[in-house]
This record gives sequence, C-alpha cells and structure tokens, in this order.
Amino acid sequence: MTARTLLRPRFDAATKERLARSAAATEGADIATSDISDWLAARRRACSARVRPIPFAQLDGWSFTTDTGNLKHDSGRFFSVEGLHVVRPSTEWQQPIIVQPEIAILGILAKEFDETLHFLMQAKMEPGSPDLVQLSPTVQATHSNYTKAHGGSAVRYLEYFLNCDREQVLTDVLQSEHGAWFYHKRNRNMIVEVDGDVPVHDDFRWFTLGQLGALLHQDNVVNMDARTVLASAPVTYPERRALSSDNDVLSWFTEQRAGHDVRARRIPLRQAEGWFRGTHAIQHVDHKFFRVVAVAVEQADNREVSSWTQPLLEPVGPGIVGFAYRTFDGVPHVLVHARVEGGLLDTAELGPTVQCAPTNYAHLPTADHPLFLDVMLDAAPSRIRYAAVHSEEGGRFRNAESRYMIVETDEETTPAKAPPGYHWITPGQLSWLAGHSHYVNVQARTLLAVLNTRTADIDMSRHEPSAGDPLH
Amino acid sequence: MTARTLLRPRFDAATKERLARSAAATEGADIATSDISDWLAARRRACSARVRPIPFAQLDGWSFTTDTGNLKHDSGRFFSVEGLHVVRPSTEWQQPIIVQPEIAILGILAKEFDETLHFLMQAKMEPGSPDLVQLSPTVQATHSNYTKAHGGSAVRYLEYFLNCDREQVLTDVLQSEHGAWFYHKRNRNMIVEVDGDVPVHDDFRWFTLGQLGALLHQDNVVNMDARTVLASAPVTYPERRALSSDNDVLSWFTEQRAGHDVRARRIPLRQAEGWFRGTHAIQHVDHKFFRVVAVAVEQADNREVSSWTQPLLEPVGPGIVGFAYRTFDGVPHVLVHARVEGGLLDTAELGPTVQCAPTNYAHLPTADHPLFLDVMLDAAPSRIRYAAVHSEEGGRFRNAESRYMIVETDEETTPAKAPPGYHWITPGQLSWLAGHSHYVNVQARTLLAVLNTRTADIDMSRHEPSAGDPLH
Repeated sequence: MTARTLLRPRFDAATKERLARSAAATEGADIATSDISDWLAARRRACSARVRPIPFAQLDGWSFTTDTGNLKHDSGRFFSVEGLHVVRPSTEWQQPIIVQPEIAILGILAKEFDETLHFLMQAKMEPGSPDLVQLSPTVQATHSNYTKAHGGSAVRYLEYFLNCDREQVLTDVLQSEHGAWFYHKRNRNMIVEVDGDVPVHDDFRWFTLGQLGALLHQDNVVNMDARTVLASAPVTYPERRALSSDNDVLSWFTEQRAGHDVRARRIPLRQAEGWFRGTHAIQHVDHKFFRVVAVAVEQADNREVSSWTQPLLEPVGPGIVGFAYRTFDGVPHVLVHARVEGGLLDTAELGPTVQCAPTNYAHLPTADHPLFLDVMLDAAPSRIRYAAVHSEEGGRFRNAESRYMIVETDEETTPAKAPPGYHWITPGQLSWLAGHSHYVNVQARTLLAVLNTRTADIDMSRHEPSAGDPLH
Repeated sequence: MTARTLLRPRFDAATKERLARSAAATEGADIATSDISDWLAARRRACSARVRPIPFAQLDGWSFTTDTGNLKHDSGRFFSVEGLHVVRPSTEWQQPIIVQPEIAILGILAKEFDETLHFLMQAKMEPGSPDLVQLSPTVQATHSNYTKAHGGSAVRYLEYFLNCDREQVLTDVLQSEHGAWFYHKRNRNMIVEVDGDVPVHDDFRWFTLGQLGALLHQDNVVNMDARTVLASAPVTYPERRALSSDNDVLSWFTEQRAGHDVRARRIPLRQAEGWFRGTHAIQHVDHKFFRVVAVAVEQADNREVSSWTQPLLEPVGPGIVGFAYRTFDGVPHVLVHARVEGGLLDTAELGPTVQCAPTNYAHLPTADHPLFLDVMLDAAPSRIRYAAVHSEEGGRFRNAESRYMIVETDEETTPAKAPPGYHWITPGQLSWLAGHSHYVNVQARTLLAVLNTRTADIDMSRHEPSAGDPLH
C-alpha cells in the first residue's frame, strides 16, 4: 500500500535561518543603503500625481444609493461605505464602515543574492498616503485590480503569486485589517521565493530585511501592506521559556474571545445614528473618530489608470499605537490587549497595549483615558525602544497616521500580573500566532514587523538558544 | 529592568507523553473495561425519560414569530430556527438554520490515577440521541444552562472550568459545529486537570483514553461533544516528514479559503424558498436534507429539569463520513477536503474526504455522486481501518446518525496528487490544526478523536521518532 513518493520535512528550519541572515544584512546587493533615500526621493519626484479633496457631487462612477444612502461604485465593485450597528452588553453604537468582501493579494517576491534573501519592494503612489509614494509589497492587488475592473494595465509580477509552486512559498496567510473601519476585511499575505532572473522595473528595488528594518525607523516610508507581510514572515525567535506557556496563551485568548458578546450587523448608511452627510464629508456629530471624504487623483502615471476619483476614510486625529515592553528573567515580553473591534470577523484579536486616537479622549479627565495611554505619552526618551510615524493603507485611508512605539516599562506602570484583557507574551509567541488568521490585528502586526526585522532597540541575542526547533 | 519572575517552558512535552500513556492504557483505575457495557446499560435503564414527537402547536414556551416565521423561545434564549440565504458564484440556496450565538463549554475533567490520566465522563440523556443516553464530557453547558435560564439545578463540576488555574488547562479552544445546520456556532472545548479529590456522582466514571478508544468502536456510545473535546487534546504524533510541509498545508488552505466566494445572510424563516411548514415539521419540498420537528421530553430525572418541549433538526437519512487513508513512504496520511458550509464563520474548514447523506443523491446517476463516496460505500472489509455509527449533538439534532469510516485506499481511487479542494495531510498535521479555531470541521474532528485515541487499525509506531519536539 505504500506509494513511493518523496516526503518532505514538516518543518523548515533553513528558511528561519535565511530570514535571520537577511535581517542581519544592513547592506544589500541591489541598492546601497546610503542610496535608498535618494532613490525614494527620485521616485517621489517622478510621481506626477496630484490628489485634491472634492465634494461628493464630483465623484465619477460613485454615488449614494437612494434607499440606503450607501456610497457605492456604479459597477458594484471595489468597495462601498455602508453602516454598522454594534451591540455589546454595556454599550452600542452605529458608524460608517468600509465593505470590501474580496480578498486581495499582498505579495512580496523574495530572491537570494550573495546567499542573502532580498525582497522586491515597489515605490508606489497611493492617494491617501501622507507622502503619496511609499515602499509597498511587490504586488498589492485586489481581485478587481487583476481582473481589470477599472480597465487599467496589468499588475506587474502578479503571475509569481497566482499559481506559484507551493514549495517556493515562504508565507501565505489571511490576515484581518482595521476592525474599526473595515467590515470583515482580510487580505492574503504572501512571500514567494524565485530562483530565476526577474526583470526589475524602475519603481522596484531588492532590499534585505535589514535594509527594510532601517527604513522602518523613518516616518511614512514603509507602507502598511509591506509591514503586515513582513509581520507574517516565519522569523525565528530564541525564547524557549516565557511567563505563560503557548498553551496558556491560547487558553487565555479563548477565554477572552468566548467572554465577549459582540453583535455587529450592517445597516443602511443613512440610518447610522450620530453621523451626518455634508457636501464634502460624512462625519460624526461631535467631530470625533473619522470622516468619509472624496478625492480626485490626477496624472498618476505609474498606477494602472492615470486619473480617478474615490472616497477615503480620514481619521480626525493621529493615533498612538504602542507596546509596553519588559524583560522577565532576561526574556523580552510585550503586553498584548485582546481587543474587540466591531468589524472583525471573529470578535477580538490581539492588539497592541495602546491603540487609540488621543483626540477622541481630549475632553475627558485623565482617569478616563484608555489604559496605559499615558505610559506611551509620557515615556522618557531613554525608555523608548522604538518610535516612528506610519500611515495606514493609502488606498482606503487618508492621512491615517499613528505614532508607533515600543516603550520599556516597569512593574509600577505595567505589572507582571496584567489587568483583565491584557497578557504578557514574547515576540516569538506573537510571531507564532501571526502565522495563523484571526489572532493578531493589523496595528500589532506593524509592531511585529519592527520586531521581526530586529529594528527595535531590544537585545534578543542573550536569550536561550533556539536549537532549530520547529516553532510554528 | 529585569523582574524576578518564574518563567515556564513554552512547550509542554510531558502532557503529550501522559496522553500517550493514557491512550495505551486499555484498563482503568475506576471502572474495569469489561464492566463498562453493564454500567452504561444500567445508566440507560435508570434514565426514565421518554421522548415523543409532537406537533409544533404543543410546544410549550416556543412559538413562531408572526412577522418572520422564525421559531423562538419566548425568553429569547436557548436557540432559534431562522432562515439562511447562501450565495456562491455558481449556485445559491435558502434553508432553515439554527441560530445560537452563545458559546457553550464542553469540558472534560482529567486526573491521574496510578500515574495515568483518566477522564471524567457522564452518562447523559439527550432527547435527540438514538439511545438517549451516551457518554458525554464532564460538563456540557451553555451560558443559558449555567445561568439557569430554564430554572433547573446547577451544572455539576462546572466550577472546575470557570475560573480554573490556567496551568491546569490541557486544552482550551473554540471549535465550530455543523456549518450546514448551525449559523456561526462555536463551542469552547476544554480539558482541565485536577489534583485533589473529586466526588463522583452515579452518572459519572473515570476512563483512560484507551478505554474511550475502545468505546469509539461501538455505535452511538461516545457523544459528539465528547468526540470533539478528545479531538482537541494535544496528543503527540510521530511524523517528522509528510507529503506537504506544514507551511505548504497552510498555504494550500489559504488559497482554498481565499478562492471561495460565499455570501451567507440570515433571512426570515418564512422567506426560505423551497421549504414549507406543516403541523409537525418544516421540510424541503423534495423531502431532502433535513426537517425541523418538535419533541416532548418527559420524566428525565437526571437532567437539570425533568420535562420540557423543544424543536430538533432531523436529517432525512443517515450520513457517510469518511477519511481515505494511505501511507506514503510508511507515513500515514488522510485526504482532507476544504469544505464550504454556509453557516461557518470563516467560509471553509477542513472536512473529511466524504461527508454527505447518500439519500440526497439517490435520484442521481453515480457520476453525479459526491467525489469519493463510492470509495466508502464499496470498500472491501479488509480495507476498512475503522467504522462505527455515531450521532451528532442530541440536544439539537434528532437521529442524526452517520457511519464514520477510515478506509485504506490506493493510487487508482485516490491519487497522491489530490484533485482541487483536496489535500493529503498526516494525522499529526490534522491534530496540529485542530489546536486552533477555524481549521477542522466537527465531522473531521470525530475521526481525529478516533486517531487521537489510537482506535483505528493504523500502525503509527513504525514512523520516525518524535524526539519530544514541540509540535503545536
């Protein structure tokens, strides 16, 4: 009965080692680290796009449906802005929400040069990004993109991700996106390795993980899609011990998820209480949270089509997103928060210690601020292990900037026995969970990308050796 | 900055070894294996319950809502029967569906006797179970149960599962249930170990995993809730190699899930096209699939309340649920199917090779039967590695029996290169995935319980040693 078939090892320790080597490589084979800023500046200059706010009435191909008030594209594709009604035992609210059921591919192509893995990144314009052009994955394509719903040109390098040889895939996982702004949104995060020659277009360059880590220190350079893919990379972490065993972490999270009663259902946008539509924006009566606006994009030569209009969601103020970080017996831990978001497919995911826009709490006394916010806001510079401003997806969000931080804390501000809903886990445990769907939210994944690329000022080398164990 | 705190190993190899020892134990410390049949027969005799079908009009506390036609309890608790509209690119349908948003605890208490783990099982009456009384987990309690929505007595042993010490938890994971019959249903599958004395009520006995495995050979003895908890146990498997690496399995499944476009939304039951309501049943116009019926339960002394009425979902015919099984280079593999079910929270989960009620296809030529069904139906006795009839949850389903099988196949009937939507994975890979939510459906988990208890006639000892690796 035994067929003669080549079996393969279930676990691939070699990939983890190759990723570690790439993270340690501060220089790359394609572009010198010192030349990256000039190259990116040149790509930004080469981008002739202009983005300007317009009234909804000037949207072309988009309109408000008469009965529901939902904002939709006339083709029925791309995305729509609808209403969401979220009910929890203690509270309920209504809000606009972006609905986009289709799953996009966020794919980074990998290739070895000089025995070191490099990653093909694109300098890509997106209308909502603060500096318009940021480093994005090789491919960032919705199904509408690659079936050409907008009648544009083909997506470069897409063929490497559709129908790829499974053995060339380093990671491939569905990950959620902003549960406060998107309804059940997931994208497919992929890294695919190639052997042969790959023609490199002007907007693309190969980078080591170490080079990408250095870029993560800069504000608004590495876009959200690139960060979430880097967070999903099967990077190795040395910790063999932690405050909680992996099994305990799962049990704690199961209890959290089972304990939250969240009923979210879509409603017509015109029924969303507390929100009103003006000529240029849909906004909250207290001007809190975010507004939905419209923009026109003109002369964008390096996009699939050269001009268009579209809605974008614009937060009212910048965010603070941070991990409290401590070592216990020398092993680094971050404080995760089991965070309910109305648009998540499965109730709650692990978020950072702090994730909020302080503007929304400005009118409240400090005691009513989100837990641990002041630990981030008041952090002494010597305690800040990482800080940079990053923006969220520029194709859906306008100027959605947050200051991402990793702050070393102590027993007084963040006790080892975490408050309900919070839990100390190691970077390795966070990375293990990010290998599956439904565990780690997109903001925590940006911080995980920082950890994965060894960008934060955290010494992870002193800890117990990994001995090449199959962590996954 | 380093706090002095006791770290723990991330992985617990000892639990896997203890579970393996319990699976090898064909005798137990509490009840002799040869006495189990008599004990269960006695418990069945002691159960005085009578269950009889009644017309909907005789339901007490349940009624059809005037506007929607949904069948609900007057308290708004327990569950309701509503309508579901499922749209896929190639097909669409409507159907009744059970809606029960609350998450129940299915918990088994574990304790060492003679250095061997034993599991506390209950002989429990459920109105829809073929023999009424089957072996169930220690605790099987919805939130309505333990907050006493039905005004009954307290749930025995529940306190061991609420507020337990996390270090005593062997497994704790949310698992889906029947996506064809339930809307987004999940339950919390737990095994919790205790040290101290546990008073044992007449309906309860301690069993080794080996004893439970022997019982899985019998028809309708181990109930569905017990099977799914056993499937979630962190059992060890020896395979270090497989046809696909673990990473490849995840990538294949991500592709499957991303490739299925399934839109399911709840509709009023009265709008479910193709279904009609009579005095005693809601059924399909072609008498296919299932019907919704009502029963009265009387004199059930060992339940929390002694008599009640309720709706149940009753399939029109028995099911066939089976894994095709092959070894490749001596390593056992089963053929999983990425199965879309309209009621699943996340699109598709891994199901068995075959999962259907043949009655629904009786009018069709063989060529239109579900793939691989005939491999199960026509299996030579020498190829059958496991077969027994089990029923699904007797609190919601009436006489929902399936013949569960594991059948050794060959290259001709089930090629190593599986057809689209199917994939060969090892029992160890299946067990690893069942450690997380959203991967393994409830029917596949019954077969996994069979594999976990080493019940099937499959030799897993010849394969590569595990070396105590932290697989999870």
